[in-house]
Amino acid sequence: MCAMIDNLKLVSLKGKEKTLIKVGDVEIGKDFVLIAGPCTIETEDQMLQTALEVKRSGANILRGGAFKPRTSPYEFQGLGLEGLKILNKVGRKIGLPVVSEILDTKDVALAVEYLDILQIGARNMQNYSLLKEVGRIGKPVLLKRGMFSTFSEWLNCAEYILNEGNPNVILCERGIRSFETYTRNTLDLSAVPVMKELTHLPIIVDPSHGTGKSALVTSMSLAAVAAGADGLMIEVHYRPETALSDKEQSLNPKEFAELSGKVKKLKDFMQRL
Amino acid sequence: MCAMIDNLKLVSLKGKEKTLIKVGDVEIGKDFVLIAGPCTIETEDQMLQTALEVKRSGANILRGGAFKPRTSPYEFQGLGLEGLKILNKVGRKIGLPVVSEILDTKDVALAVEYLDILQIGARNMQNYSLLKEVGRIGKPVLLKRGMFSTFSEWLNCAEYILNEGNPNVILCERGIRSFETYTRNTLDLSAVPVMKELTHLPIIVDPSHGTGKSALVTSMSLAAVAAGADGLMIEVHYRPETALSDKEQSLNPKEFAELSGKVKKLKDFMQRL
Amino acid sequence: MCAMIDNLKLVSLKGKEKTLIKVGDVEIGKDFVLIAGPCTIETEDQMLQTALEVKRSGANILRGGAFKPRTSPYEFQGLGLEGLKILNKVGRKIGLPVVSEILDTKDVALAVEYLDILQIGARNMQNYSLLKEVGRIGKPVLLKRGMFSTFSEWLNCAEYILNEGNPNVILCERGIRSFETYTRNTLDLSAVPVMKELTHLPIIVDPSHGTGKSALVTSMSLAAVAAGADGLMIEVHYRPETALSDKEQSLNPKEFAELSGKVKKLKDFMQRL
Amino acid sequence: MCAMIDNLKLVSLKGKEKTLIKVGDVEIGKDFVLIAGPCTIETEDQMLQTALEVKRSGANILRGGAFKPRTSPYEFQGLGLEGLKILNKVGRKIGLPVVSEILDTKDVALAVEYLDILQIGARNMQNYSLLKEVGRIGKPVLLKRGMFSTFSEWLNCAEYILNEGNPNVILCERGIRSFETYTRNTLDLSAVPVMKELTHLPIIVDPSHGTGKSALVTSMSLAAVAAGADGLMIEVHYRPETALSDKEQSLNPKEFAELSGKVKKLKDFMQRL
Repeated sequence: MCAMIDNLKLVSLKGKEKTLIKVGDVEIGKDFVLIAGPCTIETEDQMLQTALEVKRSGANILRGGAFKPRTSPYEFQGLGLEGLKILNKVGRKIGLPVVSEILDTKDVALAVEYLDILQIGARNMQNYSLLKEVGRIGKPVLLKRGMFSTFSEWLNCAEYILNEGNPNVILCERGIRSFETYTRNTLDLSAVPVMKELTHLPIIVDPSHGTGKSALVTSMSLAAVAAGADGLMIEVHYRPETALSDKEQSLNPKEFAELSGKVKKLKDFMQRL
Repeated sequence: MCAMIDNLKLVSLKGKEKTLIKVGDVEIGKDFVLIAGPCTIETEDQMLQTALEVKRSGANILRGGAFKPRTSPYEFQGLGLEGLKILNKVGRKIGLPVVSEILDTKDVALAVEYLDILQIGARNMQNYSLLKEVGRIGKPVLLKRGMFSTFSEWLNCAEYILNEGNPNVILCERGIRSFETYTRNTLDLSAVPVMKELTHLPIIVDPSHGTGKSALVTSMSLAAVAAGADGLMIEVHYRPETALSDKEQSLNPKEFAELSGKVKKLKDFMQRL
Repeated sequence: MCAMIDNLKLVSLKGKEKTLIKVGDVEIGKDFVLIAGPCTIETEDQMLQTALEVKRSGANILRGGAFKPRTSPYEFQGLGLEGLKILNKVGRKIGLPVVSEILDTKDVALAVEYLDILQIGARNMQNYSLLKEVGRIGKPVLLKRGMFSTFSEWLNCAEYILNEGNPNVILCERGIRSFETYTRNTLDLSAVPVMKELTHLPIIVDPSHGTGKSALVTSMSLAAVAAGADGLMIEVHYRPETALSDKEQSLNPKEFAELSGKVKKLKDFMQRL
Repeated sequence: MCAMIDNLKLVSLKGKEKTLIKVGDVEIGKDFVLIAGPCTIETEDQMLQTALEVKRSGANILRGGAFKPRTSPYEFQGLGLEGLKILNKVGRKIGLPVVSEILDTKDVALAVEYLDILQIGARNMQNYSLLKEVGRIGKPVLLKRGMFSTFSEWLNCAEYILNEGNPNVILCERGIRSFETYTRNTLDLSAVPVMKELTHLPIIVDPSHGTGKSALVTSMSLAAVAAGADGLMIEVHYRPETALSDKEQSLNPKEFAELSGKVKKLKDFMQRL
């Protein structure tokens, strides 16, 4: 292990302070960050209604997908640039920073104008061209773990970004692929203490993709907090039953409000423990 | 899923009360159960010293391995029946019930004399002869999830035991095998809320085998409690550096005392949350 | 790797001759062995009809399951000892040696009377009590690779058997569990050249369980032969559509005859290549 | 399964002729294609020496990596465009078409000038932007299976390319990630008969990445041919011990000559079988 991390001079914890990343009112790595919003940006109204709900319940960053990596070419691919504009507009209106996934090096320059954090998704974790591209921008990057990626490979991908000059990387565990099919993925919460051991970068958890089932999201969110996570990323839709994607794993506003309340109380408790 | 559990008429939650299993002073499924002790029973002194420590720190059941399933035939295979006798003697001396793993149908009849709970290990989860054998005894069974087993297969194995007439099964998540090698296994904490959803049987977590690293055990124990686990099983050795097996994942008494303290405070907090 | 195999003084290839195991007219390890028969022994008639067919098409060992490891306790568990008797009777009648799986140490002594080869199945590969028990008998053992077992673990299990005094172990690759669900398992044919590199024990392949689909069995059988396998184990039923288990992966007599013809021609060709 | 492939109207076999792709003198899908060359293009001399050797031994397409997806940012990333120019020059000099991997949508337009086939690597199999980009060009695409991708996901990725207007896709099985670490990947040869069953696209096999060990490459190549593969992709270096990458899995010219001779004889035999 030491060998593994020794090559990673930039992301390695050794002799470094914990990375703190200021986004809006939150200092990620110090303050607990709660990112919430729909899987896919569908309309301005859907986005705004959902955003108002998650803000009211304590989310401090808004998420929404504009460029969607979909298994089939015949599934809705997202609104693209138009989606980023909606997200940006809604975020400014309600006063929340925004994060969205980027799939293509060509889109990075434009996306930077509309986003506060750029997300690299699980399928693109080892898209090294994209990593280098977001390594050259001045905005933070949320780097999801690939569904087939070891801790070592994940940290190497973070090193790619830091090596280009961008120190502001947030790691996000979102479940790995295993033989178990009852859950969509197998959420590997050991990633949280492992990353605390190895790197100074903040680590958050996405239990929505990690489980694929809304009924499991709250339990796994609480578990992530108890494991020491710096934050959570939760899929919320103001009307999940109408969502264009991921409706099985999206919380409705009421469920999210309950989750948020419990998570914040637990986080406070953990800090005193 | 419904289809999956519909065949499991005995373990299925549907229309049943949660199973409570009285062992010593603890009612598993209602009271939080903390099982602790060494991987392997080495000597009466080692067992007693460790037992005194874990009892002082709040463990309510004592564990220790007598029949050891070892990868190589040249590794220490455990003290066998002699080990069970030591475990039984130490348990009675300090007043804690005891649990140990059984590997062979031939040993069940004798083991029942010395143990309060019989454990079926991960490698034997689908040893159906053994499942049927422990289904015919009057003592509770702790059934570990196989390292390659789905939730459905695991519940079917519990059904084998209940179907023979023994209703007292405790499920134990201990990590599954994935491509990740930094941790010994990938601890699948989603097993906790999933089992709550599907069955009335209590579910506990073994973060020692689940991570294989003592430095990760406390974080994952807290995560398990936050996810709703009914208990924990922790490897503790009074001098881990001298342990005959699993020394990398065993806690020393001081570490266990800290873990126990935190776990109990967290459990209390969770009940009020 | 060298480290891995260095501990395995008995199964390691180093300085040893290839193991040849005489069963009936076949010398396994030298002659190509074709094991065939139904998943489950259902009736004497079913067994006899199937046996006549596979013998006519060139099978040199007959298989049939008496003790069936079934996922659910409510599935047919096999005829048990009665099945072994049928298998033995049919085998003697048509002049083929017989192999069947044993699940329990208690059954080994009796099974030895009825079988020419005892099989340890994938779920029991690490049932060390059973390995030791079959290590003490005078009949060959067919050891299937566990569905989540590494080459190293598999060879260690063979070492358990040899270490008890039984040198006649036949390894059988039958597919490992992966994330792919289109095939029942992922048949890892690299096991063939790897085992040739590491051990003197013969290695055969079971493409029936390895794929779970009859339409894939012939292609994978030919691939196994080209990779250098010492034999094949094929599920055949005289009327697959009526089979009590594994009907999707069983060949009918005509399909098996075609497979057998092709396999033998390919084997001859490979020996000249 | 039918459901799985029913959505894939373009890649589905149903009612379609097998796709034949003319590249140089070879009609892929009809003629057996043998692609060979070094992992990485290092110098013009290394490329030329290797190319002469593989051509002499019967390779009909030349490979070489210019844009290298490397786990660490500190490993050699390839010569980039300069590498493509070398590959193109060497290919024209000796009269072989050339294939190389592209990582970034930005590079596709230029790469098309230098390459006869564009390769999408395992890590980028689900880089949908890149798939769409190569779907709009007039050159064939070699699409590797992702190391954690199901057959269904792989075929969906091919559908992305066909859906943009490029019908010339060659599938390449290169091993999936499993728990086994003795081999670099687990080469899933069942992909060959499965793809024959499901799609009209040609399917080739890469046993170099599939095993990661030169000693296993020939056996697995023969197995692939026996399974029905339309071709092979083999890493060859004129001096593997000096290779900048993948030296463990590269064949030297003599080994490749032997492999090629055996493969061609086996292919002829299989056509008569």
